[in-house]
Amino acid sequence: MYFIGIDLGGTNLRGGAVTMDGHITHSAIKPTHAQQGVEHVIHNLKACIDELIASQNPSPLLGIGIGCPGIIEIKSGVIHTSPNLPGWNDVPLKQIIEEHFRVPVYIENDANTIAYGEKWYGAGRTVSSLICLTLGTGVGGGIILDGKIWHGCMGMAGEVGHMTIIYDGITCNCGNRGCLEAYASASALVKRTLELLNEGHKSTLSHICGKGEEVTAEIIYKAAKENDALSRRILHDIGIYLGIGIATLINLLNPEMIVIGGGMSHSWDMFYPSMVEEIRKRAFDIPVKSAQIVRAQLGDNAGIIGAVALISHALPT
Amino acid sequence: MYFIGIDLGGTNLRGGAVTMDGHITHSAIKPTHAQQGVEHVIHNLKACIDELIASQNPSPLLGIGIGCPGIIEIKSGVIHTSPNLPGWNDVPLKQIIEEHFRVPVYIENDANTIAYGEKWYGAGRTVSSLICLTLGTGVGGGIILDGKIWHGCMGMAGEVGHMTIIYDGITCNCGNRGCLEAYASASALVKRTLELLNEGHKSTLSHICGKGEEVTAEIIYKAAKENDALSRRILHDIGIYLGIGIATLINLLNPEMIVIGGGMSHSWDMFYPSMVEEIRKRAFDIPVKSAQIVRAQLGDNAGIIGAVALISHALPT
Repeated sequence: MYFIGIDLGGTNLRGGAVTMDGHITHSAIKPTHAQQGVEHVIHNLKACIDELIASQNPSPLLGIGIGCPGIIEIKSGVIHTSPNLPGWNDVPLKQIIEEHFRVPVYIENDANTIAYGEKWYGAGRTVSSLICLTLGTGVGGGIILDGKIWHGCMGMAGEVGHMTIIYDGITCNCGNRGCLEAYASASALVKRTLELLNEGHKSTLSHICGKGEEVTAEIIYKAAKENDALSRRILHDIGIYLGIGIATLINLLNPEMIVIGGGMSHSWDMFYPSMVEEIRKRAFDIPVKSAQIVRAQLGDNAGIIGAVALISHALPT
Repeated sequence: MYFIGIDLGGTNLRGGAVTMDGHITHSAIKPTHAQQGVEHVIHNLKACIDELIASQNPSPLLGIGIGCPGIIEIKSGVIHTSPNLPGWNDVPLKQIIEEHFRVPVYIENDANTIAYGEKWYGAGRTVSSLICLTLGTGVGGGIILDGKIWHGCMGMAGEVGHMTIIYDGITCNCGNRGCLEAYASASALVKRTLELLNEGHKSTLSHICGKGEEVTAEIIYKAAKENDALSRRILHDIGIYLGIGIATLINLLNPEMIVIGGGMSHSWDMFYPSMVEEIRKRAFDIPVKSAQIVRAQLGDNAGIIGAVALISHALPT
């Protein structure tokens, strides 16, 4: 007996066959080919699921969980729109996959799926309330209260990346100014670094830039580890911005845990000290002391494992 | 059959005998005399409840709900600390009142009580999730999700007044900088007005100041209504600050409703336009459109009625 979890991203479609206790026994990855439209993506999705089923034969498949970006009507499993899946308007994905594979299917927003994965199989196993921040291209978020995802009335809750932290700050991709995402995503890190390099600040990264190589969050972290002052300063500042946002989250929701994942979380040791200092400065003592602030544990598999947790919990016991 | 609701404030102790459907049939108000210590306040509280019971004789009292400021362990009804009730450390108020009056008692943080009152008997009757902001001396808040107060793991959730809206802004009473409370409370309104008057800004209020009279939120609102440009500008700005904070709340929690109460909400018409404009500018379209933004309906009685809703819902049906 096993479940299938799918992380349906704009670039890749990642899937896993997962045991009842959250272990991935087989994984599959395919390009999403999102630009080729709905039919093609669904074709690729089915092929990915077929591969996973074949890998587990003859063990019975119990259900499929799918996390994907966008606005989803959870109960019906209809994807209203998705920023990374062009042409996806009101696609009844749950129905399509259920009719094809004849097992129960659960569809969820990908940031919520990651948070749910961390709650049930990752960093948050021992707590019932947590807020998960995924620091990647953007800053995604999921709010888990009493063990369940808080969706809000339109399924749009958890946009921690779009808290205003600096009211007259940088313009964010969402159109607002001063969002956390504009300061603490991997993209923001790279953008800020390039700006400062262009302004002529000294850094070992200048060499990379000069050679026309791409500066990535990983390269900046590596430079920081090797004591590059500019890289260290930028990551230190990101800690401050994260701290401002997390302090607000703690004062508002008094969660048991804040979980930080995504690519940027690899730089944890560089932004953690300033982040925690800022949180302590800004939030009330009692909720700060009661909030564990930890790194995500499931890495790139959080989406797959979270999708499985969602479908397995949705089934009658 | 009736309930008693108590709003135990630092200055006054207000109580009401309330019917099953949320109508106050008799009210009582007594000074709290908080400075005289725990014993004295409890004595006054009992006297207030006695008066309310006498007013309803021989109808049976079903339970007592009490809202008060501070950090409360809800289940045991112990008040750990209270900023407005000096000396209240670990007072088992629920037990004391239950043993004296022999009816079930429910103790809750006052800002949560107000939010709960608005949910069950006020502006929020038709919704299941709302966030209530009470703009008074401070900015209090209560978060209602699925019809219930979200307490957080230490009962400290809902501190909407202490969201950071301007990271390097005014120092707040809590020690943090740039909290919503430092910009959008009645105290902030008065403080800002006096600052601008002292800087020599023209206003019809200068006259009041010159005579040594106290400038209050009410007087500033009155001046704004009479077209005083300075007062209008300050209230307009408060709308912007509220809008920044509320946009973050909407992006995070996607609630069905935002309820605004407290003394400052009397200036609603002066801050509403800039507040709504700012919210629309900052928050995502779908959650903004689905969030009703309304004035509180229960006024000064929200605390009493909310306390009753809490005790009546806590009883077995």
